[in-house]
Amino acid sequence: MPEATLYPLENYTFGAKDAQPEEDPSVATRLKRLEHDFETQGMRRTVEAVLVVHQHNHPHVLMLQIANAFFKLPGHYLKPGQDEQDGLKEVLNHRIGSTDPNDNVAEQDWVIGECLSTWWRPNFESYMYPYVPAHITSPKEKKMLYFVHMPPNKVLSVPKNMKLLAVPLFELYDNSARYGAQLSAIAHLLSRYDFNYSN
Amino acid sequence: MPEATLYPLENYTFGAKDAQPEEDPSVATRLKRLEHDFETQGMRRTVEAVLVVHQHNHPHVLMLQIANAFFKLPGHYLKPGQDEQDGLKEVLNHRIGSTDPNDNVAEQDWVIGECLSTWWRPNFESYMYPYVPAHITSPKEKKMLYFVHMPPNKVLSVPKNMKLLAVPLFELYDNSARYGAQLSAIAHLLSRYDFNYSN
Ligand SMILES: [Zn+2]
Ligand SMILES: [Zn+2]
Ligand SMILES: [Zn+2]
Ligand SMILES: [Zn+2]
Repeated sequence: MPEATLYPLENYTFGAKDAQPEEDPSVATRLKRLEHDFETQGMRRTVEAVLVVHQHNHPHVLMLQIANAFFKLPGHYLKPGQDEQDGLKEVLNHRIGSTDPNDNVAEQDWVIGECLSTWWRPNFESYMYPYVPAHITSPKEKKMLYFVHMPPNKVLSVPKNMKLLAVPLFELYDNSARYGAQLSAIAHLLSRYDFNYSN
Repeated sequence: MPEATLYPLENYTFGAKDAQPEEDPSVATRLKRLEHDFETQGMRRTVEAVLVVHQHNHPHVLMLQIANAFFKLPGHYLKPGQDEQDGLKEVLNHRIGSTDPNDNVAEQDWVIGECLSTWWRPNFESYMYPYVPAHITSPKEKKMLYFVHMPPNKVLSVPKNMKLLAVPLFELYDNSARYGAQLSAIAHLLSRYDFNYSN
């Protein structure tokens, strides 16, 4: 089994920064823009980070909660041609990186680990699948979830319109009603790791 | 993304062999035996194989169906001290290996790949979780699902009281009602692989 070291939630310092509003006012607008971008750039590639900490030796996944409502992983779509790992680091720094440049030291950098899961959007619609559905030759979006290893300590800054929550695996598991199919499946995806609970 | 080559279902030849009845007549007896074995041998370790083929370039997982009712992966618990990978090969040969020794040539051997998922049984009860539940220090069973790579061709013999079915990922996905939590999650677990559909 692959190993991964998790540090306690208390090791991380959380600050606030300017709000980062949603780019699209509605799901319909978002899908419209996806369609428009597809015409010029082809399939959208999105990267998201699974950041894991522990409390009482139980793994917790860091998630953003928007407007006290829905949950999402820190992530974003990539620019055409952008490298996935570089892109994900850039996204993480933008979304939850510290605003104080002195905090961004090499020993406390993100370490992008393995791809845990891939989701495919077959059409310009909301639903995605963890496989390319049969007879779909031109998916519209590919979303990749990466295990991103947290350094032992780090200062994080969270946009004012969001909360950063540490959600335990036992809360995610079998709870697609609350977290959706993609986030609740993270409990399965992490089950092959042998976690080392550090301080 | 890790790559894996899948071969079409038609590449495999299926025969029949003697029935392999369940060792325990009921769930209650099975849990009783688990408890008894735990006293003398400690935590039970179980290994199961995720064998993947393709039809029309869509991945299908090989599953055994018992008595036209429930589905399970080929697998078994290990003997105390037995190596997981060796044990799984032995289990596979016993369960679905050809009965003709001439069929068992090295080029058509199983290749035990990565552990895809681990399930834990916290108590002498039916439910299992893809993590060790909080405050459980002595789980009763650890079940590991391995991706087992099929050779390009192979003769398989299926016990008479079972059927071997190739179940497509789109059938497993989001279908824990029919396949249970463990089998339906296989669609998520395989999503990080880049499949190469061979003939
Ligand atoms: Zn944006
Ligand atoms: Zn506790
Ligand atoms: Zn047995
Ligand atoms: Zn077809």
